[in-house]
Order: sequence, then C-alpha cells, then structure tokens
Amino acid sequence: MDYFNAPGRNHLFVPGPVNIPDQIIRAMNRNNEDYRSPAIPAMTKTLLEDVKKIFKTITGIPFLIPTTGTGAWESALTNTLSPGDRIVSFLIGQFSLLWIDQQQRLKFNVDVVESEWGQGAKLDVLESKIASDTSHTIKAICIVHNETATGVTNDLAKVRQILDSYRHPALLIVDGVSSICALDFRMDEWGVDVAITGSQKALSLPTGIGIVVAGPRAIEASKHAKSLRVFFDWKDYLKFYQLGTYWPYTPSIHLLYGLRAALDLIFEEGLENVIARHSRLGKATRLAVEAWGLKNCTQKEEWYSDTVTAVLVPAYIDSTEIVRRAWKRYNLSLGLGLNKVAGKVFRIGHLGNLNELQLLGCLTGVEMILKDVGYPVKLGSGVAAASAYLQDTIPMIPSRI
Amino acid sequence: MDYFNAPGRNHLFVPGPVNIPDQIIRAMNRNNEDYRSPAIPAMTKTLLEDVKKIFKTITGIPFLIPTTGTGAWESALTNTLSPGDRIVSFLIGQFSLLWIDQQQRLKFNVDVVESEWGQGAKLDVLESKIASDTSHTIKAICIVHNETATGVTNDLAKVRQILDSYRHPALLIVDGVSSICALDFRMDEWGVDVAITGSQKALSLPTGIGIVVAGPRAIEASKHAKSLRVFFDWKDYLKFYQLGTYWPYTPSIHLLYGLRAALDLIFEEGLENVIARHSRLGKATRLAVEAWGLKNCTQKEEWYSDTVTAVLVPAYIDSTEIVRRAWKRYNLSLGLGLNKVAGKVFRIGHLGNLNELQLLGCLTGVEMILKDVGYPVKLGSGVAAASAYLQDTIPMIPSRI
Amino acid sequence: MDYFNAPGRNHLFVPGPVNIPDQIIRAMNRNNEDYRSPAIPAMTKTLLEDVKKIFKTITGIPFLIPTTGTGAWESALTNTLSPGDRIVSFLIGQFSLLWIDQQQRLKFNVDVVESEWGQGAKLDVLESKIASDTSHTIKAICIVHNETATGVTNDLAKVRQILDSYRHPALLIVDGVSSICALDFRMDEWGVDVAITGSQKALSLPTGIGIVVAGPRAIEASKHAKSLRVFFDWKDYLKFYQLGTYWPYTPSIHLLYGLRAALDLIFEEGLENVIARHSRLGKATRLAVEAWGLKNCTQKEEWYSDTVTAVLVPAYIDSTEIVRRAWKRYNLSLGLGLNKVAGKVFRIGHLGNLNELQLLGCLTGVEMILKDVGYPVKLGSGVAAASAYLQDTIPMIPSRI
Amino acid sequence: MDYFNAPGRNHLFVPGPVNIPDQIIRAMNRNNEDYRSPAIPAMTKTLLEDVKKIFKTITGIPFLIPTTGTGAWESALTNTLSPGDRIVSFLIGQFSLLWIDQQQRLKFNVDVVESEWGQGAKLDVLESKIASDTSHTIKAICIVHNETATGVTNDLAKVRQILDSYRHPALLIVDGVSSICALDFRMDEWGVDVAITGSQKALSLPTGIGIVVAGPRAIEASKHAKSLRVFFDWKDYLKFYQLGTYWPYTPSIHLLYGLRAALDLIFEEGLENVIARHSRLGKATRLAVEAWGLKNCTQKEEWYSDTVTAVLVPAYIDSTEIVRRAWKRYNLSLGLGLNKVAGKVFRIGHLGNLNELQLLGCLTGVEMILKDVGYPVKLGSGVAAASAYLQDTIPMIPSRI
Repeated sequence: MDYFNAPGRNHLFVPGPVNIPDQIIRAMNRNNEDYRSPAIPAMTKTLLEDVKKIFKTITGIPFLIPTTGTGAWESALTNTLSPGDRIVSFLIGQFSLLWIDQQQRLKFNVDVVESEWGQGAKLDVLESKIASDTSHTIKAICIVHNETATGVTNDLAKVRQILDSYRHPALLIVDGVSSICALDFRMDEWGVDVAITGSQKALSLPTGIGIVVAGPRAIEASKHAKSLRVFFDWKDYLKFYQLGTYWPYTPSIHLLYGLRAALDLIFEEGLENVIARHSRLGKATRLAVEAWGLKNCTQKEEWYSDTVTAVLVPAYIDSTEIVRRAWKRYNLSLGLGLNKVAGKVFRIGHLGNLNELQLLGCLTGVEMILKDVGYPVKLGSGVAAASAYLQDTIPMIPSRI
Repeated sequence: MDYFNAPGRNHLFVPGPVNIPDQIIRAMNRNNEDYRSPAIPAMTKTLLEDVKKIFKTITGIPFLIPTTGTGAWESALTNTLSPGDRIVSFLIGQFSLLWIDQQQRLKFNVDVVESEWGQGAKLDVLESKIASDTSHTIKAICIVHNETATGVTNDLAKVRQILDSYRHPALLIVDGVSSICALDFRMDEWGVDVAITGSQKALSLPTGIGIVVAGPRAIEASKHAKSLRVFFDWKDYLKFYQLGTYWPYTPSIHLLYGLRAALDLIFEEGLENVIARHSRLGKATRLAVEAWGLKNCTQKEEWYSDTVTAVLVPAYIDSTEIVRRAWKRYNLSLGLGLNKVAGKVFRIGHLGNLNELQLLGCLTGVEMILKDVGYPVKLGSGVAAASAYLQDTIPMIPSRI
Repeated sequence: MDYFNAPGRNHLFVPGPVNIPDQIIRAMNRNNEDYRSPAIPAMTKTLLEDVKKIFKTITGIPFLIPTTGTGAWESALTNTLSPGDRIVSFLIGQFSLLWIDQQQRLKFNVDVVESEWGQGAKLDVLESKIASDTSHTIKAICIVHNETATGVTNDLAKVRQILDSYRHPALLIVDGVSSICALDFRMDEWGVDVAITGSQKALSLPTGIGIVVAGPRAIEASKHAKSLRVFFDWKDYLKFYQLGTYWPYTPSIHLLYGLRAALDLIFEEGLENVIARHSRLGKATRLAVEAWGLKNCTQKEEWYSDTVTAVLVPAYIDSTEIVRRAWKRYNLSLGLGLNKVAGKVFRIGHLGNLNELQLLGCLTGVEMILKDVGYPVKLGSGVAAASAYLQDTIPMIPSRI
Repeated sequence: MDYFNAPGRNHLFVPGPVNIPDQIIRAMNRNNEDYRSPAIPAMTKTLLEDVKKIFKTITGIPFLIPTTGTGAWESALTNTLSPGDRIVSFLIGQFSLLWIDQQQRLKFNVDVVESEWGQGAKLDVLESKIASDTSHTIKAICIVHNETATGVTNDLAKVRQILDSYRHPALLIVDGVSSICALDFRMDEWGVDVAITGSQKALSLPTGIGIVVAGPRAIEASKHAKSLRVFFDWKDYLKFYQLGTYWPYTPSIHLLYGLRAALDLIFEEGLENVIARHSRLGKATRLAVEAWGLKNCTQKEEWYSDTVTAVLVPAYIDSTEIVRRAWKRYNLSLGLGLNKVAGKVFRIGHLGNLNELQLLGCLTGVEMILKDVGYPVKLGSGVAAASAYLQDTIPMIPSRI
C-alpha cells in the first residue's frame, strides 16, 4: 500500500496538502457514524462557531462544504453573482489564473487585471476602475490573498480602503486558501464579503472541506444571484442550520472530527502565535534564499509571503530537476514551478503545523540539491542565515516553560 | 472528542455512511503527501481501472470527484444536459425527490413520474412516454437503482429494454448510490450511460468521493452540454488523464488510499460473493420483519432491496421513537423514516462490509425496542426466522476452510 | 497484513484479549516519545492514582510492569516470598494450574487444594489448614478471583474472613486477571495483599502491561523476600517513584496512553456501572445456555462468573469443533476448553468494553453453530431468553438521556 | 491526551525509543484478536524465521518475549547460567553497569572488567583471564555490542577470536539492544551464543518485545541452568513451538503485527542498506561534532558508534541544560548524560527508520542550543560538515530511480 517507499519520514514542503499533526490523524482514526444522531449536530455547532474565529469574523456564516478549494471558489461565485455580472479579477499567478478561468466558464464578465508573475495585484488599476465605475457595474472584486504559485501576498486592507473611499458596493471575494490561519486575515475589519479556504492548507487536515464564510452582504446577494447551483447552494445549508440538523447532505464525519482537533490545536497555541510562527518560518526561508545568492520570485518585500516561497533558479538550471531530485534522493517534497514559471522556480511551502527544525531540515536538503544540480552553493550558508535569525526569535514553548 | 459516549461498539445500521472495515481505517491512517509526486498517479491509475470492474463496465470512464452523492448527481446532469432539456425522472422516495429537486433547480424540463412511496418506478409510464416521443425530445431518463428511503430496487434491465425496443436515444442516468458494489449492477450490459455512487455506501469508506462513471455516449454528450460547470466538469479530468497526472485539482489522498483498500477487500472476497452476501442479509432481514408481523414498506417482492429495508410500523407507534430509543438505549443506529414516511417507517441498512452475526445483533436490538415501544413482538421470533435461513445458506469463509 | 481475512467485523468473545474500544485504539495511534521528558512522568502519576481506584484501594501501590499476567504472577510471588516458603494454592482450572506450576518452579512449598473443575476453591479446606497452622508456617494464600478456564468466581470476602477469624498473618495474593474492573473487587475491604491483572482483559487494552498492586504488608514483605528477581523487582520501581521519574526501565509509552484512555472510559461510565453491565451480560449468557438445554461448567450459582461462561456440551459433540466452526463460518471467536475440559466445554468471554447487542449477536452465532454440529437447539431460544432479561434491565445510556 | 504540547512534529533523537514509521503505526492500528486462532501462529512462524535474518543466524532460535531489554537480559542469563556461576562482564557505561547489577542480584559471580566511560571493553584483560582460566571456571562472557550511554561499539569478532584461540567454552552473551538491525551484527559468524535486542530500538517499534536469540550451545545450557525462572523460561516457548501454537502465554498481538511491518520495511530497504544508512548518519553526526569543536565521548575511532553519539561539553556548560533546552525551545528530544557522565555529555541517537534530512534538522537545532547555552559555535558549521559528507554519499532512493 505504499508507492515508491523510502527510509525515514517524508519531508513535506509543498504549499499544500501539508503535514497533518498526530492529534488530527488520531481524531480521524475512527469508524463512520450516523450523521443524523445528535452527536454530529452538537459537534458541528462548535465547529461553525470556532471557524468564525480563525476568519476573524463575527457576522460571517461559515459553510463547511465537502469539496476542495476549487469547489469553494465556485460556491463563493455562484451564490453571489449572476451570469453576465461584471467582476474585476486579478491574474498574478497560476491559482488566480485558474480562478479566472472558472469565472469565465461560469459566464461572468471578467475584467482581468494582469500582473507580471511575481508581482502583487495592481491596486492602482483597481482604484481607477472603481473611480470610474460610478454606475456600479462592477459587482465583485475577486482577489487571492496569497498567490500560492508565486508566493505573493496582496494587501487586502488596501483593497477595502479603495472600495470604501469611492463608496463602491462591489462585493469583495477573497481566496484565502494559502493564507487563512497562517497569515493575518481579518474578515470583518477588511470588509471581506466572502472568504474561502481549504482543509488541507494551514488547517493541516486532509483535502475534503472547502470552507466558505459569507458576510451579511453576501448572504443578501445569494437571495438574488441567478447562477444555477444546488450542491454548492448556501440556501440548503441555511435551511438545515435553522432546523439544527446542519447538513443538507452527508458530511465527511472524519473531517469534522479532524477539524475539531485542528481548531483545538490552533486555539491551544493561540491564533496570533500561529501567525507569528508562520512569520518566522517565512522570514527564515527568505534569509536562506538570499544567503544562497538566489532570487525570490516575489519581486518586492511588500508582497513577501509567509506561507510559501517561490525561488528563482538561474537560467542554466531546470527547477523541475530540483524538485525531482528532492524526491528521488532526499525524500523531500518541494513545489514545482507552474505554467509561466515552470522550470524557473521551485517552491518551499512553509505553512501548517510545522516547526523551525522541520524547516531547517528542509533547507539543508535544498542546499545539497542545489549543489547536486550544479549551482555553486556553499553548504550550510542558507541554514546559517536562517538559524541565526531563528535563534534570536524562537520563543520557548509555552506549555514547557 | 466523543459526543454522547456509550459502552461497547456502536451498531451502525443506517443505510450509509456504513461501517468501515479496519483495513480501510488503517489505510487512511497517514500523513498527507504531495499529490504531484509519481506515487499518486501510479495509485490513481489502478483505482480507475478497478472501479470499472465494480461498475461492470469496460467502456466507461470513471471520475473520482471529491464530493458527495449530491455532487455526483450534479456532475452526471451538468456534463450531459443543457438547461431546458427534457428528462424523465421517477419520484419514488426521498432521494429521488431530492434528485428531481436538483434537476429542476438546474433548469431541466423534468417530466416527473411519481409512484406511491414503497413502489418502484412506473416503467409502464416510461414505456408510453418513450413510445410517443418519436421526435426524441426526451434527452435523458434519470432513475435511482435503489431508493434508499423506501428500500425499493428498480429493474434497470427493463428500462434498457424499453429504450431499445423503441430505439430511443435518451441517455440512461442511474443513481447507484445504495446499490453499486452491493446489488448486481451491470453498466455495460444494461446500457447505462452515467452511473454514480458515493464512497460511504457499499464501498465502506468515509464520505468524500462521488464516483461518476460515464459511458461513451455520455462522454460524447459532455462535449455539447451547455450546463455551466467547472468543479464538476469532466473535461478537466479528461485533460489530466491524458497528461497522466490525473487530477485537475487536489484529490483527497486519504480517500484514495482508502479506496485502494476497499477495492482490494472486494476483490479478495470476490464481487459476486459480496453481492451474494448482501442478498443473504437482505433476505434475512425481511424474514425477521415478517416474523415480527410487520410490513415491509416495499410493496412487492420484485422491488425488495438487499441493501436497506424500510419497516412499516402500526399507526399507534411513532417510528421516530424507535430510532431514538435504539440510539439512546442500545447504541444502535437505525435509519429514520423521511418526509412522506416520517414516523411511519424505520430503516435497517444492511450494506457494506458487514457479516451475518452483525445483522443478527441488530435484529435482537430491534426486537427489544419494538417491545419497549409497545408493539407485541415475541422476543427471538425475528432472529429465529433470520438465523434459520442464514444457518442454511452462509458459506464457510473461503480463506479459513 | 491480514491472515485468513473474512467479511465484516470479527466477533471477539474469547475471555481475553478482548475488544479494544476505538478511543483506546486512537490514543495508542502515535509515535514513540522520550520517556525521560516531563510528559511521561506527568501522565504516569495520574495512572498510578487512578489504577488504585479500580482496585478499590487507598493503601496499595501499583506497578505497571511491561509484561503479561504470567509475569505479574511472578512479580507478586517473588517480591513477597522466599524459596521454600509454604503457600496454600487452589487448583480449580487451567489458569490456577499454571500459576501453581509457576509457584512450584519458583521453589515454593505449595500446598495444593484441588477442586473438581467447575467448582470453586475449597474454602472449608482452607479453614481447616488455617485453623491448624497455629505456628503460621503458611506464608501466603494464592487464589484466583475468577478462573478463566471454567468461569468460576471465588468468594474472596470469605477468604479474608477465615484468615481474620484465626488472626492468621498469611499474605492474601489474588489473581484478578479476569475479574478486576469487571467484577466487584475490593482490595482494601477484603484485605488483599497483592492483586494483579493484565491490560488485555477488562481494561480492554492490548496485552503488555501486567498490573500488580501491593498493599502495605506486601511492601513490607518485599524487603525480606529472598526470591531472586530484577526485572520484576518492586524495589527498583519504588526507587524511581521516589525520584519522580517513575520508570526503572523503558515503559511502553503506547500502552500508557492506552491505559489513560481506558481509565477515562471506565470513570466516564462509572466503575459501578461497568460492574453492573458485566453482571447483566453474565446473567443473559447463562439464561441463553439454560434455554439451549445446556449445562454451565460452573456447578453452583454462587460461583457463576460474570466475565466468562464455560458451556458444557453433550458427550457426542466435540466442543473444539464448535470453536473451530465459529471461526470458520461465522467470524466468531470463542474460547476453547482447556486441558481437563478440552473437547467438553467452549467458552464465551463477556468482559471488557462490550454492550448487550454485541453479546446477543454472539449468541445468535452460537445457536447456529450448535445446530451445525448436530445439537438439537431451537434457533432463537437462547436469544429470546437473554433478550427478555436484558429488555427488562438495560438502562438508558446516561449521556444520551 | 497530550502533555506539554508544542507546534510541529517532535524531533526524537534519543537513542530509543525511536521514531516509528507510519507503516508500523498503521499495522498496529487494530483491534485485539484471538491469539489461539490459526492467524497468529501463521504470522508468528514468519516472524521467527525473519528475525533470524536480522541477527544473521541460521542455527539460533528466537524468543519474542513480551518484556523490555531488561527482561531480555534476564532471560538470557537465567536460561543459561546457575547462581554462583562465574561470568566476565565489561563495565563501560550505564547500561553495562545496569546489566552487571542484574547479574549480581541474580547471584552470579561476576568478574567485572571496568573501563573508563568512553572507552571500549578491555579485551586484553579478557584475553589474560581466558588464558589463565584453563579449568574453565568462566561460564560466560557478557558484553554490550554498543554501549548506549557513551556511544561505544565493541569488537565482537575479536572477543570470539580470543575465546577460540584458547578453545575456551564460555558462552558469549551479547546485548545488541542498540546495535542489532543498525550495526553489522553476525551472530553465527561471531559465535554469539545469546543475543538480545528490544523492539523500540533499531526495529523502530514501541517498547514491549524483548527479542532473545539463543544458539545451539545456549539451548543446551538452558537444559541444565539452575536459575529459577518461569516467565522468562525458554523451555515453555520451545514446548509451544513444537506444538505449532507458539505462545506459552498471551503475546502482544499488536507488536507482532508491528514487527511484521518492521521486518518488511527492513527487507524492502535491504539489511545491508539499512546498516550503510546508519553508517552515514553516524559519520555525519561525528563530522558535525568535530566542526563545532566539541569532543566525542568515545575516545577512539575504533569504538565509534553509528547509532548514538555522546557529545562532551566544556566544563562550564551543563549538558543537562542542553537537553532541557532542546525540549523546551525546539521540540527536540536529545539523550541525557547518565550517571558518571551526567552533566558532561548529551547524546544524539541516530538509529532506526531515519533519513539524512531528519538528522540534519536535528543538528541545526543542536547548533542553536549550543549558542543558547553560551558555547561559541558558528551556526551552520556542523551542518555544513555533515551535509558535505552526505551530499557525496547518499544514494538515490532505489524505488524512485
């Protein structure tokens, strides 16, 4: 039942699916049960309440849909928009590209604002579009908080500020797949109308829950949106929320228990501590990249991502070979460069329930691989830079002091 | 992490999610891994081949969509039909009702053929509709193989025969959620164009994979169907099948390993033996019901289901109380009566990786509950009837002879 | 990784190792950890305190030895006695026989008091020995609380009364392997000096912890006992208890986590409720045996065991064939007749984390097997008798009311 | 159920219990079963055959005793020797010291040959004792292959050569607890009469099986040895081996399944590859220690251990603080200095199912801790030295080429 087995533990540093902590694996190690018994609603109630905390929302309503991030995107769009609606969407990498492809196939009128891959969303372009849209033809702004393909984090507070300064009513729909629960995300404060994430990212679960949280304006929009939908329809969920049974169709009981364990772990560590840990891991990774003399695909510090770092390799190296070698020799799983940056970048995912020594182990592997493929790296250099920073900043483990 | 805990093992006899065998629980007890490594495609390839065997198809193409049965329905419909298309759909219980609701909300022109709950699909009505539809306005026939709410199995061979005798080209779309891998299902022989099932039913996995198998005519139809879809779109899957990477978006790795284990178990037992086992369990259950002097909700033997039995209770008893009591006193999970038969029936699910003594243990519980709620049952009577039959028919366990 | 696989769940009704509840399986589903970190002592401390509760002792000191019941026996004997010491030991079945064999090989002077198998310890003989032993040559009384081979429970209160009435200082050493945590056992009240059990019995863990609890007089005796011992020596444990690190050598961390979960389950249910549940299961089993027209190996009601029932079969039937057939046809594991009762009895273990419907499922299987082997049983008869009793006595599940 | 929880995965680098691979965790994730069914003997047979392979013996007979290494020691001694027997035993560190304590408490006449901690067994002293023992009063030589407390590996081939050159019949009894399955160990070639190991060491299981393998001369000795024993007596095992049921008392079924998985992993990787991997990890660790300017507790290269490295710290540093800090700040578990070297050394265990990046992650942590406690280490220096060596020597993963 294992394919291409290797000694020791796999070092999983793709930007999702990420490492699952033992507590979550244990929580999911169980038989099925009747989801119509009182047990599942009792647990679901706590999940819905607690999911709101990690989105930092009080007014939002969460939907825990048995789907993936792609399905969560679709749920966000079809519940709030009607075919033909004009939306502004930012293309800054492979995942925003896929989302835009979905938006177009769902027949929205997508106003694509493209950036060079490695740059953030062009918010100045947004501002000019909003400024000129006095008749409010723009129904929604779709933006990834963190583009997983390039390691670029967009400034959502700024987006909100633009919309507010023009009193523009467009919905703000945010893909937080590789951000929420790892980067600082403030749904209510930033006026995000719909935000989504996936279970296999910072929550550190298996794939299988697409989490969608809808704010009051999005819920209102859903009453009028004409996009056809059933599986993804919030209406059915809301009906069963009212009934107190919560599920319009069979949920994945295992993932619910897993989510319960995931949330418990996050609250035990403290959400702000989780975010600070990601900040340390991101910074440490970037210091290593710098020490290796390599460039971050992300072009400016303001866009640096604390969950994934896309590393540019020199033209004479094929980054795909780096990823392949990582897997074939070091049992290390890195992220490929995708589409426009295929062959040009490899990605280090540093999100989820991960600690500093795990990351440093990964970085030692990357150093050896770089040498393997002919890049003149000084072994130990990146690790030295990263650990110098970490040595100054890692806190004592609170429960162990 | 347990809600409403009780001593001993829960007796899970709802018609899904069903008991998960230990081998499958073990197979899923693992960390995430990189789904872009060669391991996942290597495994996926075997899964796609082997899923075809349990659908008894050579020409079908399977899609293992990270969704539930409701999503699988939607995938079957939106890939093959366009809004406004006329379809004939049979309403015979709660699940066919929900499917029809979906069909209507997806804007198909649904020609609903309703039966009394407890009866099978009215195939004579189908025949007259087909006979009169010489201009082939009917684009698809949608039918549940086994209605989980009433325990009614429809005769799919007969449906095919009707279509063939009029050379009618309507697609035959079958919900096999509570049948496939438990009842005899012959996709190719019966000319089924799309068949679906869910992981949490006879396959005995957690919820989370909606399995859709599309025959050649359905694949052809999908090229022209105008229903909007992205997450459920077969096209993306087919593209990645061609590339050999198989997944247009992140699959649930855990469920893939679980499915591998599930299929291994089925083939080890032998698919025909699995079906025969379900036949024994179904028959034994019906004999017990008869011995108790109760009526099967299913009105005729031709419709009897070997995966779920809906038991009618006398008017002076509320079947909901039976289900509640089963859970509250005996740690036994039975199925509620739904919608039109709420309060009137309770359901015993007897599908999945289950053996005879497990079922008999359940039946002993039902007897005591019946007495609890005031029904004059003779304790031991149903069990005696069921075990007399089983004692004559259970084979020796092949591996242990 | 499975040997002689069969559909559905194995029905495990041997009198140990018994079924492990999911909560315990989950608790043990983990990596190793450093047993010298503060975590293991912190947990161990709670275990030692809580183990005392299930032995109903305040003054006893528990040792959680990584061994089996056989090792626990050896620890009890070698820590309290010196070679040549006279002990009175009761031979009433295979396990007391094995213990006596151990006592003799450890060179104690064993005064064996034998009963016919199926009868309890001859306490009248004990009384006469104690009465006549005015010089206190008898150093210990060794007695099984519950003989697992014949399903006989001895009256320990009576033993204590005999010793007390003659003010005899002999140590009272009790094998509680198949009793503690299932039958009422009162270490302090009954003046038991050493009591032992094994993890795989009523505690419902895997095999691997031999639990020995020593009272003050036993601890005192251990300071002078001349039997050679190191691995089993309490002295090393006591030394590390003092140090607060608890372990003289590596414990099984997994079983400690499992034991923590087991104790939590027992306290959640309530120890007295656990005992009452075993009483119900024992009585129900005996009613079924009676209804089948078979005899209990246990000859008098005063000795009936609530954890295991040894069923006598007619001379024309080989009980080994019953056990073999149970496994080969019904995936049911029953206990063999051992030694003197081989071929004559089969045993139904009804201990551990087990509920009523599980037992009834087992009984339905036994009925069919009896018929298989030619015994003229009326199917349903035993189950009817058992369930009539249970229907009157099972309480509602407290957490679910 | 977790004590002193911390983010991310615990880095377990104590020299046992070691990390358990997922495959083994999965194999043990199961219910109990009847150990008298044919399944357990069928599996046991394969285990006994395969355990011999990792001891490199054809003539030895393995005993898989439900105990720890301490119990395995006791089994080796009491089955082959009688109280009063003269044995030569080497005291070179804490574990040989504990074994000698056991030997003395079991009343053997122990001729202790002591070395400075950090040095190997004094084989020249052995030679002179053997040379002068012409009347063969020495019954056994007891030696640890690898002293876990100091990271010292003894030359067993040399021991055999000494015994052979004087044709001395003393039994050679070897503690291979932290060597077998990690270091090259050749039971038959080196004429080892009894060798032992524990499940929680290189086999990477939980604690709970003491593995004892006895050669023909040891089996012969066991027929005459007068040490009292029952639980540890080989005779009972041999009797049940003959019967084909294999177990004189209840084994730990979970550990048997775990052992089956462990052996499968070892054979899949190849025993010689496993040994080579440990050689790489040992060498890499020593290179790091050297680069840090620290001394190995092991005084000469001929004794260097490939499973554990004890690192001497300067006098102004308390090594206990290093271990404490590792756990409190980095979630890294290192081994304490024990007894004579307490406060002076810390230990890095590098045995079991472990790969290079895992070790390098550990080394990055040690560097930071050293700096934390005031040692002037250059961050990255040890890792650079280790990875330079590894980069030249790690092979591609065979299954992935």
